[in-house]
Order: sequence, then C-alpha cells, then structure tokens
Amino acid sequence: MKQGGGQTVRVTDFGAEPDSRRNATAAVRRALDACRKTERPVLVFPKGRYDFWPEAGFDKVYFESNTTDNNPKRLAVFIEGFAGLTVEGGGSTLVFHDRIQPITVDGSRNVTVRNLSIDWDIPLSAEAVVAAATEDYIDLRIDERQFPHVIEDGRVMFTGEGWRSAWRSAMEFDGKTLQVVPGTGDAGCLGRGWREHRAEIISPGLVRLHRRFERRPAVGNVLVMRHSDRDHAGLFVADSRDVAVENVNLHHAAGLGLLAQFTQNLTVRNFNAVPSPARRVVSGHDDGIQVSNCRGLVLVEGCRFHGLMDDPINVHGTSVRIDKLVAPSRLVCRFMHEQSTGMVWGHSGDRVGFIENDSMRTVGNGVVAAVTAIDRDSFEIHLEQPAPAGIEPGDALENLTWSPDVTIRGNEFASNRARGLLVSTPGRVLIEKNRFESSGSAILIAGDANYWYESGAVRDVVIRQNVFGAVCNSSPYQFGEGVISILPEIPKPDPAFPFHRNIRIEDNDFQPSDYPVLYAKSADGLVFSNNRLTRGRAFEPYHARKATLTFEACRRVRVDGNRVADDVLGRNIVLTGTPASEVVVGPNQNWLR
Amino acid sequence: MKQGGGQTVRVTDFGAEPDSRRNATAAVRRALDACRKTERPVLVFPKGRYDFWPEAGFDKVYFESNTTDNNPKRLAVFIEGFAGLTVEGGGSTLVFHDRIQPITVDGSRNVTVRNLSIDWDIPLSAEAVVAAATEDYIDLRIDERQFPHVIEDGRVMFTGEGWRSAWRSAMEFDGKTLQVVPGTGDAGCLGRGWREHRAEIISPGLVRLHRRFERRPAVGNVLVMRHSDRDHAGLFVADSRDVAVENVNLHHAAGLGLLAQFTQNLTVRNFNAVPSPARRVVSGHDDGIQVSNCRGLVLVEGCRFHGLMDDPINVHGTSVRIDKLVAPSRLVCRFMHEQSTGMVWGHSGDRVGFIENDSMRTVGNGVVAAVTAIDRDSFEIHLEQPAPAGIEPGDALENLTWSPDVTIRGNEFASNRARGLLVSTPGRVLIEKNRFESSGSAILIAGDANYWYESGAVRDVVIRQNVFGAVCNSSPYQFGEGVISILPEIPKPDPAFPFHRNIRIEDNDFQPSDYPVLYAKSADGLVFSNNRLTRGRAFEPYHARKATLTFEACRRVRVDGNRVADDVLGRNIVLTGTPASEVVVGPNQNWLR
Repeated sequence: MKQGGGQTVRVTDFGAEPDSRRNATAAVRRALDACRKTERPVLVFPKGRYDFWPEAGFDKVYFESNTTDNNPKRLAVFIEGFAGLTVEGGGSTLVFHDRIQPITVDGSRNVTVRNLSIDWDIPLSAEAVVAAATEDYIDLRIDERQFPHVIEDGRVMFTGEGWRSAWRSAMEFDGKTLQVVPGTGDAGCLGRGWREHRAEIISPGLVRLHRRFERRPAVGNVLVMRHSDRDHAGLFVADSRDVAVENVNLHHAAGLGLLAQFTQNLTVRNFNAVPSPARRVVSGHDDGIQVSNCRGLVLVEGCRFHGLMDDPINVHGTSVRIDKLVAPSRLVCRFMHEQSTGMVWGHSGDRVGFIENDSMRTVGNGVVAAVTAIDRDSFEIHLEQPAPAGIEPGDALENLTWSPDVTIRGNEFASNRARGLLVSTPGRVLIEKNRFESSGSAILIAGDANYWYESGAVRDVVIRQNVFGAVCNSSPYQFGEGVISILPEIPKPDPAFPFHRNIRIEDNDFQPSDYPVLYAKSADGLVFSNNRLTRGRAFEPYHARKATLTFEACRRVRVDGNRVADDVLGRNIVLTGTPASEVVVGPNQNWLR
Repeated sequence: MKQGGGQTVRVTDFGAEPDSRRNATAAVRRALDACRKTERPVLVFPKGRYDFWPEAGFDKVYFESNTTDNNPKRLAVFIEGFAGLTVEGGGSTLVFHDRIQPITVDGSRNVTVRNLSIDWDIPLSAEAVVAAATEDYIDLRIDERQFPHVIEDGRVMFTGEGWRSAWRSAMEFDGKTLQVVPGTGDAGCLGRGWREHRAEIISPGLVRLHRRFERRPAVGNVLVMRHSDRDHAGLFVADSRDVAVENVNLHHAAGLGLLAQFTQNLTVRNFNAVPSPARRVVSGHDDGIQVSNCRGLVLVEGCRFHGLMDDPINVHGTSVRIDKLVAPSRLVCRFMHEQSTGMVWGHSGDRVGFIENDSMRTVGNGVVAAVTAIDRDSFEIHLEQPAPAGIEPGDALENLTWSPDVTIRGNEFASNRARGLLVSTPGRVLIEKNRFESSGSAILIAGDANYWYESGAVRDVVIRQNVFGAVCNSSPYQFGEGVISILPEIPKPDPAFPFHRNIRIEDNDFQPSDYPVLYAKSADGLVFSNNRLTRGRAFEPYHARKATLTFEACRRVRVDGNRVADDVLGRNIVLTGTPASEVVVGPNQNWLR
C-alpha cells in the first residue's frame, strides 16, 4: 500500500502490538530495517499505544546541547542515514519508560515525523496538589501511580523504572489558571531554607513536609516537584537536513523536548509541549525546542507550550573560548558549558567570527580549514588565514555558517518556568502572531561569550503582531529585565560598537502589569513602533526597574507610532549610557517626560 | 576477605549500587563471572535494595514444570555450571521488574542461596479492599502504585512494566484474619456470571463494578484479583545437586515460587512465601515450592506460606503416556500436561514403572537405555529389556529413579488458595510438626496418570505431630475430600491392588469444623492412630461428605488409639468398596457405630 506517495511499512507487521504494553522497541527497529529496502518509505504506527523500554534499543554516544553527558544515550526509534522517510504515527501514543531518547534522527535528509504523541507513564518531574498549608507543615497530595515516591532520611525521593531521584526544587502553579504564581519562579515558593524540612507519608499519596516554611503555597495550587537530570532529548535531530516535525504532542521527555544540532532546514508545525490528560501541569522536562548550531531556515509554527521547566524555544549557537594560539592560524578552543561539549564544532569551509571578550565586539572573520578534537572539552582549529591581530586567549569564536534564519509564527507560549523565546542568531529572524503568557521575559535576545556561551549577536530581527499578555514577566528569573529583554552578556559595553543590530518591534499588543516592557542593551538600529500598550492587572508590580522602556549603551533607537494607555505604569523611557541624540521619539505617544 | 570459608565477591565491586533503583542485572552477571575464577566463592550483596530488569539479563529456553511455555525465559541471577557457590544476600531485598526469573541454578552442585528477599514493585497479581458492596455495585480500593490499572471495554486491565493483563478471577480473604473466606475458594466469591460486570473508575484508586452480583464480598475484606500467566519461577533449580535455600523471603514471583527439577538433594530452610510489608495478602504468584522429578532428600523445614494462589508445597514426578510401541523395547511417550513438556524425562540407567491406565496398577518395571526427543511434547525411550506383556498405548510410564525422599518439618501452612501440601513420590515421606491453616485439604496424596500426570504412588508416608487447624478445608477445591485427602485418579480402582501403600497418620491434632477429616482411596496399609480430634468452629459445615473417616477400595486399615471429642461432627467411619474385614478399629475411641 502507498501512503503519502511512499511505500508503507507497518510496525505491526514486525511484531509491535498496539495497546499490549509490551516492549515495541525491537519491532520498530526491525520495521526501520525494512524501510531501508523500500522506496520513499512511510513507517506507519496503526493507531494505538506503543510502549518502549531501553531493552533492545540502541546505545550511542551523543553530545547533546544543554544536556547532561551520561553517555551512551539510549535510543528507542533510531533513524540513521535515511534519505526520505516519513514516520506516520496515525494518532498513536508512544509511551516511554526509564530514561531513553524517544526519537533520534541522525545523518538523514527528508525525514518527517508526524501525527503522534510522546509520553511517559512515570514522568521525570512530579506534580503535587497542595492539600494543606499550616504554620507547621505543608501537605502534598502526590499521585502514587504517576509519581511513585519514598521517604529517605526525611526527604522525598521519587522512584521510577531504573532510577531514584531526590526532589530538588519546586514551582508553584495556580490551581485554576495553571499559571506560574506571580512572584515565585526562581525566587521560589517555599521560602529560604525550605530544604530543611522533614517529610513523612501520612497516608498513601499524602506527604507532609514538617517545617515552618518562610513562604507557603496556596491550598489547591499545583506544586511541580523537580528532580532528575536532563539526560536525553525527546526528539533529537543531528547532522541532518530537511527535517519536519508535524502534529506531535510532546507530553514528556527526559530532558529537552525537540533538540536540533548541526541541521539544515527544520520545520516544526503543531508541535505541542503540553501536559497529557493525566496531568495538570508537568509536560516536557525542560526546554520545548532547542535549536543549536543549525543553518538554513528554522520554522516553528502553530505550536503550543505549557508546563515546561525551562524556555519553550531557544535558538542559539555555541561559541567557544580560545585557550591558546598555537600558531597564527592554529587555535586551541574549549567548550565552556559543561552540558554543551563533545560536539564537532566546525567543518572545513565554515565561516567563523572572532569575538573580543570584554566588549563582545566581533573583531574579524575567518574560514575553517580543519577541526581536530583533542578531548571532550577542547579541539584544535586550523584557519585558512591567520587570526586577526590582537586576538588572545580568553577571546571567543563563533561559527557564522551554522546560523539559521528563523521564523516563529502563530505559537502559544503559555505558562512555563522561565522565559518564552530565546533567540541569538545572526540570520534573519521573524517573530510574528504569537501569544505570550510567559512567567518570565516573553522574548530574550541574549548572546554571550562569558557564561552560557550561547552565541551570538543578532543582525535582523522583526517582532510583530504578537500579543504579550498581562502575566508576562510576573516572576523573577535570570535575564528578566523586561517583557522583551535584549541582554547580551557584555562585561564592558561600548556604545560605539553595539553587539546586536537591527531589531524592529512593531505592531504588537503589550498588556504589562508591571513597569518594564522593553529593556535593550548594546543594540544598534532598534525600532519600537506602532505598538499598543494597555495596563494588565495580573499581578502586583514588583520589578526593581521602574521604566517602561530602557536603552542601555544603544545606538540609533526609534520609538514612534505607539499607543500607550494612561494607566500603563511608568510610561517612561530611561537612557543608560545611551546618548539622547541616539534616541528619536515620535509625537503623540503619551510617554511621560 | 573470607566468609563462610570462601572467597568473597561483592556485587558492589562490579557496579551494583544498593538503593539506587538502577538495574543491577549486568553488575551481578559480572560478579558471577568473577566468582568463576575464585575458590569456594561467596557472592555477597551488601545490605540494601537491588533492582533487576530483563535488560542485560540472560535469555534461555527452559521447560519448567507447571509453567507456561513462553520461551526463552528471561533470567536475572544465573548460576550455571558452578561447583560450590554461596549467594549471601546479607538481608538485602532483590526487587524484580517486568516478567523475569529472579534466581536460576542450573547444572551446579553445592550451591547455597541465603539471607535475602525477592519482591516485585508491581506484582503480577493484584489485591483490593472492598470499599462498598451494594445491590447494584461493588467498589474496590486498589493501590494505584502497586497495581496500576486501566478500564478497557468496561473491564479491569492491570498494567505493569512490559505487560497488560486482564483480571480473570477473584479470591476473597477476610480483612481481619487474612484467611480465605470459608465457602468461597473455587466456588468463587462474586457468584455466577460475575464477569458480566461493567467496571468504572470513580476516583483514582477506586473502581466500581456495576452489576447485581449473585454473591457479594464483605466490606473491608481483601479481594485478590488474579491476572497474568505463571511464566517464570522465583527460584528455578534444574539438573543440579546439593542445593540449599535458607532464610529467603519470597514476597512475589512471576509463577511458582521455588521450582526444582531433576535435582538431587534439596534443602529449604526458613523459606517464607509471604506478603511483603507493602501488601496484606498477595505473596508469590502460584505454588510455593514445587519439586518435580527430583531425587535424594528433599528437606523443607521451618518455612511459612501465606497468600499463595496455589498449593504451598507439591512434590511429584511427571508420568507420561505411552503413545506407541515401536518395538518391544522401544516406546514413543508423550507429556500430557501442557505446562509440563519439553523436559529431558529420563536418563540412561533410570528405573521406570509401567502403569496400567484404568486400574493405575504398576504392572512391571524397566531400565532406560536411552531417551531421544522427538518434539516438545514427545520422545522415544529405549529400554534395556522389552516392556511387560499387556502394555499398550494409553498406559503410562513413571520414572522411579527421580523420586526423592521427602521431609517436611515444622512449617506453617497459613491461608492460601487451594491445598496445603501435595506429595506423590514412592520415596520415604515424613511430614511432622507442621501447622496447617489451609483453606482446602491440608494434605493431598494424589497420584494420577489420567489428568495432571503427576505421578506417582506413595509407599512410605508418615504424618505425625502436626496440627490441622479449624479452618482446614473450609472452601471447596478440586480433590478436597477431607482435611487429609488420599485420592489417586483411578478410573476403576481394584481393592485387590491398591495404588498407595503404607501411610501412617499418627499423633496429630485435628480441629475439624466440618465432617471429613480423612478420605482415603485405594490405599493399602493405612494407619490412623493416636490422633486427637476436637471440634473446630471456624465455619458452618457445608461438605457433602458427612463422614469423619472414609475408606474407599482400601486394604489393611487400622484406626486405633485416637481421642475423639463428643462434639466432633460425624464421629463415623464409612467404608466404600472396602471389606469390613480390612478395617481394624481399636477400642474406646468414641466413634459412633
């Protein structure tokens, strides 16, 4: 039978039994082998539930961005070396067990994964309902089936298939709105020293935490109890080209949701990192989509994100520290973030940018001749030409070739831990028609070569026709300087040489409940035009920054055509290290002077 | 370090981490490999919890007696080809997952397994507490963590790691005494047609069964909900010699608890097939100890059995049907019970007995020259001499060499489904100082070549100084003709040639709540002496057999020296097909005439 123009291969013909709860891993492996002998194969999962355990899966070493190195990774559905393959889930749910990477696409092109849900019976984060909160204790109702737990030495220890993991942080979500409770986030919801409690099981599924907590969550609210490392992605796409993910519900993952690395052209449509019907909040484990060192076009459209424990979307490169100049055209470089190492950072012919560490200025370009790994953390790079004069150990290198264009359109960023969308790529970026209900900044444009080493500077960003809801930035998180936060990590910003360029924020609806709407640092060519600002009332203002718009060390800023309601907080524009001559403010916009 | 005179090998030195919940299977495998290079090795589990999944285990084909053939079996701790090994659990608990055989001893001698507990997080039988029982429905509270379940088409379906299994039968245990509720057992506790209910989840862990049940269990009672096949043993001992199991708690298994086949000398001390602290009733899945086709001495001492879904102890051979006489000394034979096939039934030099099918008479003996498998179900046997005259297809063959002596001493047979102790071996049998609280017959001496084909005739059995409690035989089960039931399956018993011989029941305490204390069929040389009978009141008498002692087709029976209380029911002796001249009853015993 043909489907979508290709030859159908059914997993059920290779031993997979829907709804049987038996391990489908080996059957899917055999079906994929059969796909190799087929023209334009369509791997079909007849509708049902399929379960996967690491037994009979693949083990392979992968260095996955922002993921704990627990190699080898354990792979369930492993798509390697395919040229043309459609995985047709047919509305099936793939349920995973233990710690495992559900779907891996490696060294392939023209691969589409569609129409399926990914879930875990026993997720690697837990959720609880607050049953009581008194001066002396808090009672948590924890579903014993989804979140098995024991008490060890007075601490809650979650257990699952092949793992045991101590509770280590908490996020409070409103029981009705299912949004992160304002003012909590990284500030916590149990007060300082909360770990000094003594846990006790009162009755099956009811855990009492004995302590006079500095802060208490509200009865009926949902407490996400984080534990476990992020050690596998949900869908991992590496060294591939023309990969599409469509109509996929990611209800859980053992780390990031969808992670793409060194891949050209990625299309993600109707990918929903949201809780399964069995849960209220917990969905994927950490980020929703992370795109690291890709190129071509990254399109994310019509997706939904809720209940993640980190940013829904993060598009970035990986800059590396120059450790040593062995010769004018030979450098030893080092990966600087412990969860982003071991990758093949560059290929012959790649263009690279040299970044001076203190100012974050790109001081020159180069072309890669060869890259040789030294160990997991460092490699030697040979350049076609000598490195620019003045480059020295401590400066950084950015790969400009692996920098995609990005379109983020029509997505819903509901309430998650941390921010909504992070983007740092020199490619063309279009962010339009999205709805943000993020508890931290809705959009962060960072770029740094000092901490996360997630390069790089942006050069062309349009943010238009989005809605930034009243709950945006309601809790404190790192980088949360405004609803939109442009915040490169620059130790000594130089206004003469801004880091980011050409950012246009136009025709958006902002409903700020607090002061800061836009914070921009070290940007050149920044437009804030034709936006509508009305006062939101989702939370009490708390932010230390009492300015609606802040421009720090910026050049060529234009603010015009905006409609600002009278009760918007601040209605002011604050300049820090930015000459007033660099800021043009249009007439009739109701800004306070 | 030396321990017990041997060289210590610690599983923790090979990667096992106690209490980590990580899969210890591979580490224990490596540690056992190290034991092979060691003199008198002691494999030590430093005290803790160790988890085992089939991943990294062994797969091997085994034909296990009374076990579903789902080959290959999946093995966790696999002790093969050892001459001298001690497994020292140090008080550890080994927790198994999915369906797997915890400990396998194959082709080894001088192996001791001691000081450990075997359990499952998610047992393969479930238990529920009856929360409500009305005219229209029954509500069951089912621990979601230990017994995960879903409803499919209105039926309760239990789920676990790698399996999904429909509820298929129920056993009711009293919530206070934890004994099988009298009058239920194989008669059922939900009435006829109970499967025609509609199940619904009312709230997490609370399942409602909609139906006007013919019979309703009592609120507060425990309902064991049976599902799943018996597909692996807990401890499997095959083709070995001098094996000991000491201080082992078997809290669960995927089938029989301890199964020994074709093994010489088995010592079992303080082996407890009892519920774990996390459960009230469910322990091992089916039989506690099954000894099939062994020889030498089988000693079972100081053990406890509670909550099993089949007989605590069953010692038997496997007789086979003669299908064809190929030549006077060449027979084709067939395994007759679908769960007992594929074994190597005999070895050169084994003595066999020929059993005439209708009368079950042993009509002659022979010696095996060779055995050749034909397929899983049949084999050809070559004899040293021609088979006795008159032997024809349909008759049976018994292996007399693989018939052990048996001592069962000081054990506690608490409430389980079915009987207490089954024994059918021509060897010397001593059953003494045990306590029986069995819900069916306490002791069954069967022997048949017609149904289960569990040979054979006994020749020397002493049953002395045991206590048979008031609950014995309180529910109807197959073969439940008396507290002691001597019931060979003989289509046409011939009193001139009884099947069993030389059974002495002496100096025991019986507390019968119902009439039948002893039923004996086709026994020659049967003594019932110096026993004490007092009236029990654990249940209302229900048994159709209104006789205290019944002798059917027996010879040389003696009943004397017993003390029988006035209120013991019946106090009568009934003879069926037994000439009165074959029964000697001593004086002053209070039997009614």
